[in-house]
Amino acid sequence: MSEQLGITVRKKEDFSEWYTQVIQKAGLADYAPVGGCMIIKPLGFAIWENIQKILDKKFKETGVKNTYFPLLIPEKLLKKEAEHFKGFVPECAWVTHGGHSKLSERLAIRPTSETIMYETFSKWIRSYRDLPLLINQWCNVLRWETKATKLFLRTKEFLWQEGHTAHRTKERADKRMRMMLKVYKEFVEEYLSIPVLEGRKSEKEKFAGALTTTTIEALMPDGKALQMGTSHNLGQHFARVFDIKFIDEDGKEKYVWQTSWGVSTRMIGALVMVHGDDKGLILPPKIAPIHVVIVPISFENDEKILHKSREVKDVLEKEGYTVELDDREGYTPGWKFNDWELKGVPIRIEIGPEELKNKQLTLFRRDTSERVRIPEDELISKLESTLTAIQSDMFKKAKRFLKEHITTVKTYEEFKRVVAKKGGFVRTCWCSNQECEERIKEETGATIRLIPFEEEEVFSSCIYCGKKAKHVVYFAKSY
Amino acid sequence: MSEQLGITVRKKEDFSEWYTQVIQKAGLADYAPVGGCMIIKPLGFAIWENIQKILDKKFKETGVKNTYFPLLIPEKLLKKEAEHFKGFVPECAWVTHGGHSKLSERLAIRPTSETIMYETFSKWIRSYRDLPLLINQWCNVLRWETKATKLFLRTKEFLWQEGHTAHRTKERADKRMRMMLKVYKEFVEEYLSIPVLEGRKSEKEKFAGALTTTTIEALMPDGKALQMGTSHNLGQHFARVFDIKFIDEDGKEKYVWQTSWGVSTRMIGALVMVHGDDKGLILPPKIAPIHVVIVPISFENDEKILHKSREVKDVLEKEGYTVELDDREGYTPGWKFNDWELKGVPIRIEIGPEELKNKQLTLFRRDTSERVRIPEDELISKLESTLTAIQSDMFKKAKRFLKEHITTVKTYEEFKRVVAKKGGFVRTCWCSNQECEERIKEETGATIRLIPFEEEEVFSSCIYCGKKAKHVVYFAKSY
Repeated sequence: MSEQLGITVRKKEDFSEWYTQVIQKAGLADYAPVGGCMIIKPLGFAIWENIQKILDKKFKETGVKNTYFPLLIPEKLLKKEAEHFKGFVPECAWVTHGGHSKLSERLAIRPTSETIMYETFSKWIRSYRDLPLLINQWCNVLRWETKATKLFLRTKEFLWQEGHTAHRTKERADKRMRMMLKVYKEFVEEYLSIPVLEGRKSEKEKFAGALTTTTIEALMPDGKALQMGTSHNLGQHFARVFDIKFIDEDGKEKYVWQTSWGVSTRMIGALVMVHGDDKGLILPPKIAPIHVVIVPISFENDEKILHKSREVKDVLEKEGYTVELDDREGYTPGWKFNDWELKGVPIRIEIGPEELKNKQLTLFRRDTSERVRIPEDELISKLESTLTAIQSDMFKKAKRFLKEHITTVKTYEEFKRVVAKKGGFVRTCWCSNQECEERIKEETGATIRLIPFEEEEVFSSCIYCGKKAKHVVYFAKSY
Repeated sequence: MSEQLGITVRKKEDFSEWYTQVIQKAGLADYAPVGGCMIIKPLGFAIWENIQKILDKKFKETGVKNTYFPLLIPEKLLKKEAEHFKGFVPECAWVTHGGHSKLSERLAIRPTSETIMYETFSKWIRSYRDLPLLINQWCNVLRWETKATKLFLRTKEFLWQEGHTAHRTKERADKRMRMMLKVYKEFVEEYLSIPVLEGRKSEKEKFAGALTTTTIEALMPDGKALQMGTSHNLGQHFARVFDIKFIDEDGKEKYVWQTSWGVSTRMIGALVMVHGDDKGLILPPKIAPIHVVIVPISFENDEKILHKSREVKDVLEKEGYTVELDDREGYTPGWKFNDWELKGVPIRIEIGPEELKNKQLTLFRRDTSERVRIPEDELISKLESTLTAIQSDMFKKAKRFLKEHITTVKTYEEFKRVVAKKGGFVRTCWCSNQECEERIKEETGATIRLIPFEEEEVFSSCIYCGKKAKHVVYFAKSY
């Protein structure tokens, strides 16, 4: 099933081609026979399953319950919240026929589910006792992208989760918005080993229909930012439109305050970009579908070596590791090494005649290419410490890169130079005028990725117009 | 969120209305603001998650890997296999516009994914080493039903899993087809406590494009059969159309043999129908999202009773049970009893002053309404044995009903009478002529649900035409 050739370009030389090759050749995903869509292959989907398992548990720990709402949204529902509709209508795929009949009203494939969910929330919520309402769904969504497809990052259809909550007050909605952003940040940093910046979006960049949008943003090796997850306080916009009211403890009828929040399969794209190298994928142990691959170094299929390999596999599986024993015939150990390195398995154990003789094992670390021989009876402790080291070293490396690519600038000349040459986040000051923001985007391609939560002290005047600055902001080009 | 009124009709008196009320009032699902679709609510989705978790593990144990293929299928792909297209085109929802543009070719929302998957399989499979290819996906599908919506049983969109495999020989495909049907049968009988009959479909009833369709069929209390899962040997039909070939060990190029198999959220409908009673849902312990609900019998919120309730909850959770402590204020114990009985929780533990004084607990069995007082220190063993008894008694009860509703008939008069009055499976003999099958359907509404795998000895001539019978078959009306 997998293409057996390695990556033919270097990450530093042709980043975009490298990215596509890694994804296809490692068996994460592929282009589909329908324009702009992708097939998530077994290794890619196994990563998504791990992401789902971990996040789903975290969501449920905060009281969230899973549901499933319909794929199709009648146009009139989508139109109810004007800003939301304006934001999404250019991206909708429309169903106009069912079977042999033309429909009386066209139906959009969900680009996101606020409207179809909130029409129902108005029926579910009666009293303050029904609040907070904490709902999530894992599903597919579709946005009619016309730009070139980029696997995991820009496809018409993608998989995601969307959380939707309703609360009694603005404060509680704010708290939930921040709580879920924290869940995302901790997950991305701890499990994906990708450091992020967090903050809120400018008015221009926020979600269509939201009061406040908060975001976590990661930095890719080509200097572009990638939005990893967002969490919105929707205020009462949707509640007013969908008539979601409750009788409060004081007997008064009030509109609920709502949040929504989501992450998607694009996180897998970030995982590839941030950690991969010229040999292929490098997966952080905490998210890797396979922790260890065992390769017997045995040209004549030595039964003793195979036996030892199986024994090691059993021992590790009993300890809870996911282990693959590569006993395929007709392939050299070297070929197998390349194949598993391409697929990003964090640790390889080699077992050959030397190891057998000396009651030793050879451990190979995918991230650093270090190879050490260890006594067999130290396997478990050594493996555990190595996996921990890999996870933390990968984070540190990415964190170093991020830090080196946050550049503070005070003049627009410098701003333009950094955006064009060095890339990364440009930290600067802004007057909060949308016109400056738009001009900067037109002239440099950079957008405001975030305004930090902990407002930093303004250190210069607005980078564009020179007037009094209101915020420190982080600009970057982005995916 | 839940309607607080009990079921207002009796299961025996208005089965259809009873079914809808249980689903809505227990909080399993609801009608959606888009015609013919449903919302799966938290309790319904939690059941689906349990179904997924158990089946997914079983699939993976047989070597199957999960993937995700696109939602949209270009019309020309869907058309490639003629029978398949003819079978599904009346049921497709068609996307004709993306954003503001009309598409050059319309796209179907997948009614099933054979065509979009197999177009890709032809690229993945090169040699016998790539076989068997064992793929599954959990996803939403859409079939443009025009008949009245029935929650979980007949909705335009539903959730399911579809497995797709490719093999070297017909025998291997047959083996896989039967293996997956066995997985389904064991799951449905062991976890859902629903007994099924198994067999293959007639030519008329088989899946559009299949060589052989096998099925498991359950019997609902109203005497209608419900197809719980199917597993198909697709032969080489799709392989020839999609050009899925491999070089075999003998160096020759051959077409693969394929299977596909699926179960859906309709299983939840069967669960409701088979086990529910006039008070609501009854869930088999092995699939119930909540095993035990603890209701403190304390009108003045006695802190000692609440403390004991929390203690019991902790003890049970440590043992791996899912436990809900209903300490809601403002509701009587009686109200709470009804609410949790409606939701089908297998066991209720009541803790009141009497129990506290005597170091006892009261255990209530949802399925039999038995109430026993047990010494507190026997809780774990008693709970475990009661849960096991519930699971097995529910199965036995359903099995008895199934057995009582398999009627062997030798004359068409008797056939018609049984179908019209008693319902259930009618076991009879058939000449294998499709015309007889169609006439019987027209005249009685019953279809051949299955031809048993272990061919039973023919005991009469064809029930319709009187000519030589070839098979013993099981007829029934069905959902």
